[in-house]
Amino acid sequence: MAASLTLAVSTVIFALRPHPETAHPALWLPLVRRIRSPHKGLWALPGGPLGPAEDLAASAARNLRETTHLAPRYLEQLYAFGRPDRSDDRTVSIVYWALVHADEASAGLETENVRWFLADALPPLAFDHSLIVEYALWRLRNKMEYSRIAAAFLGETFTLSELREVHEVVLERDLDPANFRRQVESTGLVVPTDEFRTGGRHRPARLYRHDHSIELADNGPLSGR
Amino acid sequence: MAASLTLAVSTVIFALRPHPETAHPALWLPLVRRIRSPHKGLWALPGGPLGPAEDLAASAARNLRETTHLAPRYLEQLYAFGRPDRSDDRTVSIVYWALVHADEASAGLETENVRWFLADALPPLAFDHSLIVEYALWRLRNKMEYSRIAAAFLGETFTLSELREVHEVVLERDLDPANFRRQVESTGLVVPTDEFRTGGRHRPARLYRHDHSIELADNGPLSGR
Repeated sequence: MAASLTLAVSTVIFALRPHPETAHPALWLPLVRRIRSPHKGLWALPGGPLGPAEDLAASAARNLRETTHLAPRYLEQLYAFGRPDRSDDRTVSIVYWALVHADEASAGLETENVRWFLADALPPLAFDHSLIVEYALWRLRNKMEYSRIAAAFLGETFTLSELREVHEVVLERDLDPANFRRQVESTGLVVPTDEFRTGGRHRPARLYRHDHSIELADNGPLSGR
Repeated sequence: MAASLTLAVSTVIFALRPHPETAHPALWLPLVRRIRSPHKGLWALPGGPLGPAEDLAASAARNLRETTHLAPRYLEQLYAFGRPDRSDDRTVSIVYWALVHADEASAGLETENVRWFLADALPPLAFDHSLIVEYALWRLRNKMEYSRIAAAFLGETFTLSELREVHEVVLERDLDPANFRRQVESTGLVVPTDEFRTGGRHRPARLYRHDHSIELADNGPLSGR
């Protein structure tokens, strides 16, 4: 290996938080402002060099914790980016993506150089990080359709309306409530409880929880490693 | 980055070739015998260090070419493996998986230290390469269900029976011919031609070809990069 090659681990972190104008849930991600060259002053994904005895996923979780003071609800390897022209110093980045819970995310600290942005209104990013975020969004939307990772955005229990709202925000389209209910019930991925969400103008809505015997997303032989 | 960290690129290469006993198509992959420590004498995935100005996929294709004298029909990044305990010298391996065409694979040269093995009868492998192959098989089977990558195992045109046989071999189960035909026709992934396969004991069977406007497998924003 060339002596000049650097291996870095970066993480795309998603959370649902209220939109500042509509107060409806929206998709956000935290970025870190670069304080040195190259691309000094530009926003970038949180990340850094892999520790000498550190597992890749552990490195991603550490970056996430250091940036947002949060633990991930869901963490998955996204892709390794290694085009020689992606940086001047020949860095290969192994990128993870993570989901964190809205309540926790709201408690995350913002500083001058760490800030949360709406996923559909990002500033220009350093290096190839715009492409990386675009790919992470694509993966999130795909995975949302055929796994129960939406649950990672929610609390321990949730109504079907809340679950549908998560899907609508991430997929950026309205879903028919009756169809959505039928689809969710047919998959068996969530389980009805005996509790109800009461209050407000609406009639009480049944609370559901995840089926903990099913993994958030099936990763085959790598699951649980 | 620790000075001792090595970045390697390895490739799991699949082809369909006749089974030595039944002569039916079976899934094979080529392995390379290690000629130095650690794990000297054990079989391992083809691979090597990333070149200083080399793209990751180009490195995988180079390994594939050097090992099998073949060009891949399909090449996709599988996963980056980086557990600190996976080797003594702290190697992070970015692994690709590839499909090559049976006719070409048959022409691939075997030597004392390069040999093709049946995917369901592999020898003990060096490092964590058994896990890597298991994961690649899982990815191949998953992808087979929702993309047209089966076509990468076939020639320019093929009958629906030949396409079904590829699915049956990879998925390791029999498929109902009428159901399979309905399913394939409903996806529009393959296109009927005006030609027929004649000869043998069977009545002429219509030849199909891939719809070249559809990628072998959708990789979203990374497609074509």
